[in-house]
Amino acid sequence: VTKAPPLTREDLLAFDRDDPLAHVRDEFDINPDVVYLDGNSLGVPPRGVAQRVAAVIEEEWRGGLIRSWNAAGWIDAPARVGAKLARMLGADGDEVVVADSTSVNLFKLLTAALRTRPGRHVVLTEDANFPTDLYIADGVASLLRSEGVSVRRVPRERLPDALDDSVAVLYLTHAHYTTGRLHDMRALTEAAHRVGALALWDLSHSAGAVPVDLHAADADLAVGCGYKYLNGGPGAPAYLFVARRLQESLEAVLPGWMGHAAPFEFSATYRPASGVLRHLCGTPPIISLAALEVAVDLWLRIDMTAVRSKSMRLCDLFIALVDERCAAHGFEVVSPRDATVRGWQVSLRHDEGYAIMQALIDRGVIGDFRAPDVMRFGFAAPYTRHVDVWDAVDALCVVMERGLWREPRYATRAAVT
Amino acid sequence: VTKAPPLTREDLLAFDRDDPLAHVRDEFDINPDVVYLDGNSLGVPPRGVAQRVAAVIEEEWRGGLIRSWNAAGWIDAPARVGAKLARMLGADGDEVVVADSTSVNLFKLLTAALRTRPGRHVVLTEDANFPTDLYIADGVASLLRSEGVSVRRVPRERLPDALDDSVAVLYLTHAHYTTGRLHDMRALTEAAHRVGALALWDLSHSAGAVPVDLHAADADLAVGCGYKYLNGGPGAPAYLFVARRLQESLEAVLPGWMGHAAPFEFSATYRPASGVLRHLCGTPPIISLAALEVAVDLWLRIDMTAVRSKSMRLCDLFIALVDERCAAHGFEVVSPRDATVRGWQVSLRHDEGYAIMQALIDRGVIGDFRAPDVMRFGFAAPYTRHVDVWDAVDALCVVMERGLWREPRYATRAAVT
Repeated sequence: VTKAPPLTREDLLAFDRDDPLAHVRDEFDINPDVVYLDGNSLGVPPRGVAQRVAAVIEEEWRGGLIRSWNAAGWIDAPARVGAKLARMLGADGDEVVVADSTSVNLFKLLTAALRTRPGRHVVLTEDANFPTDLYIADGVASLLRSEGVSVRRVPRERLPDALDDSVAVLYLTHAHYTTGRLHDMRALTEAAHRVGALALWDLSHSAGAVPVDLHAADADLAVGCGYKYLNGGPGAPAYLFVARRLQESLEAVLPGWMGHAAPFEFSATYRPASGVLRHLCGTPPIISLAALEVAVDLWLRIDMTAVRSKSMRLCDLFIALVDERCAAHGFEVVSPRDATVRGWQVSLRHDEGYAIMQALIDRGVIGDFRAPDVMRFGFAAPYTRHVDVWDAVDALCVVMERGLWREPRYATRAAVT
Repeated sequence: VTKAPPLTREDLLAFDRDDPLAHVRDEFDINPDVVYLDGNSLGVPPRGVAQRVAAVIEEEWRGGLIRSWNAAGWIDAPARVGAKLARMLGADGDEVVVADSTSVNLFKLLTAALRTRPGRHVVLTEDANFPTDLYIADGVASLLRSEGVSVRRVPRERLPDALDDSVAVLYLTHAHYTTGRLHDMRALTEAAHRVGALALWDLSHSAGAVPVDLHAADADLAVGCGYKYLNGGPGAPAYLFVARRLQESLEAVLPGWMGHAAPFEFSATYRPASGVLRHLCGTPPIISLAALEVAVDLWLRIDMTAVRSKSMRLCDLFIALVDERCAAHGFEVVSPRDATVRGWQVSLRHDEGYAIMQALIDRGVIGDFRAPDVMRFGFAAPYTRHVDVWDAVDALCVVMERGLWREPRYATRAAVT
């Protein structure tokens, strides 16, 4: 057996020339001074977003004023953008709506789901679920403590065994935020249904990274984030999904005026809108929502199957190059090496991960860090080049070989890392 | 006694020449084609907002990317803008934070307030409170039904008598959205305290319209809207206030990651941030929040006492001109004629109010309509001229005298009116 010769930067440039998604990078507004590998925390802007937002401010807000709620379609924006997102999620247009933040949507759907399962009081989740998901579950349990609601946290491998007929909701994040490891959404949803529980999925780290098909998984409920993989802008509004079969039985937990059947009647009594719309609450931030819509429109032009193949390859290349070129420096790959169970991020564990990442960022390679010791590198296939993988690993080699991370200024942790 | 001669358009132009706030109009980006009297529903844009938002998108999002959470101060924005708003509200900087929507904030603070009053289960409110406030109160009661929480709705004049020791929270909107009538915040808060209840005020229709002094009123809790009187842009984030004395006893009801004491520890256990910050939940919509900050910065340069005098006068002039010129057309002034108990809107009741308002809007005079029969005219002193009052009443005369509202196209109600 002849071992393949080591990869070179020229090899990766050649991969870029053959990349069927290469032209998609031009649809994003890329900062050319950096290698950006943190789209899992904040996606880059789509081209045209600045222009669209300027039109919202100058034409719709300044010019149209209050009339723009109708004339510019502001009032329909949560449902309209939701219906577009649905096409990315394997859902129908009337099953998804854009609203609030991921955390608020988790609260609404988890609480509503518990209401549909009287006699069952357990929320089953993974002990390493995304922190805000855990906090919200605990918050719901605290609010409903007099009804005996509790949260059962177990390691991911014990989830199937922990499903029993006390479980009201199986509550999981599809892709793990630290490792990128994917749950089998279909199998776990089926296991939940088998014991009479509902499944609520957080897609914040998977939609946009891997093909998501809520109908194929027979999912009940889902939420997700607009500003990470979806490129909707910092703090973009989030979204939620309610399977049609559950829509009429699911209560509006935060019954604000936007979720009323006839918001402009200004009736003194709440009457829920039909279907998923009742989970709207207050007035949506129209300017941020307009930015998200530009991003969703772009996503609908991108071939998700090609995204999946390319991101698997980018991650595989990164792991191979780290193995090959950084073996001496004590990195542990904490993401799955099997690309089929991994989203589009690769995480490396290192005791000095914080300082190493700061040194990398100073050199224009932007990933991020999650306490206590994990460096995350995201490979967003729509706008990341193969050569970016080479340059990132190259910078990592330089930082390690020259001990650049030892500079004292890299030891102080900033608020956001 | 000699009766004063009728006012003329020239008189109102003269008032504009003498107006100490005339120059403030230049700080807003005004559509010159309309007389805009709906700032109570959507304020006009401050000048500079388009430029600021463009910088957020192009420099901070595209250029800074994830680094902008620190470098551009995104992470501190909810507290920073809250502290600025506090100066408009008679509060301290660490008592106000920008978050979510008004409806979500009402839910958080009302629920948290109930938690601090065990043994008391009544939310006392005005039967004609703003609809979303009523819906949220009912939603909280429904969620906490097993604890016996209920909502007591009474006419405003019966509020003092309805305060008894079963009341946990007095829950009111400071200025009524239809009539503009103001509650006596100080007297009602004192009455609530006398029976051991907390007072939660919705400032959505008063902050920016009249001087608000939460400390002078000894208010406990408050929320408010960013996009109406404050000019923060369509669906701008809302804010909430928690008096310092209550901050450590008030639980975070929606415990999302932004309200964690150390959000970037990504700890699996929620630990509330100190003070008002624990009421943050998910990631804020940074682009919309940047627009709001431009507006708040502008408001801090505006003399609120002068705003109050001018808006009282604009409203008085409108009422006088309607009385004088439209007496034959059956309008009833439903706002208080006493300016001291009125915000800056005047509402007229008319059976054909919907069609009349549509005809007015078609002629460039933009107010709004609230079912079943109320036409609202808002007089935002920072950017409304005295002559606008004349022109609005003039257009109203034309619409009525020529019967223009009878055109069939004005009979069909649009989604937003």
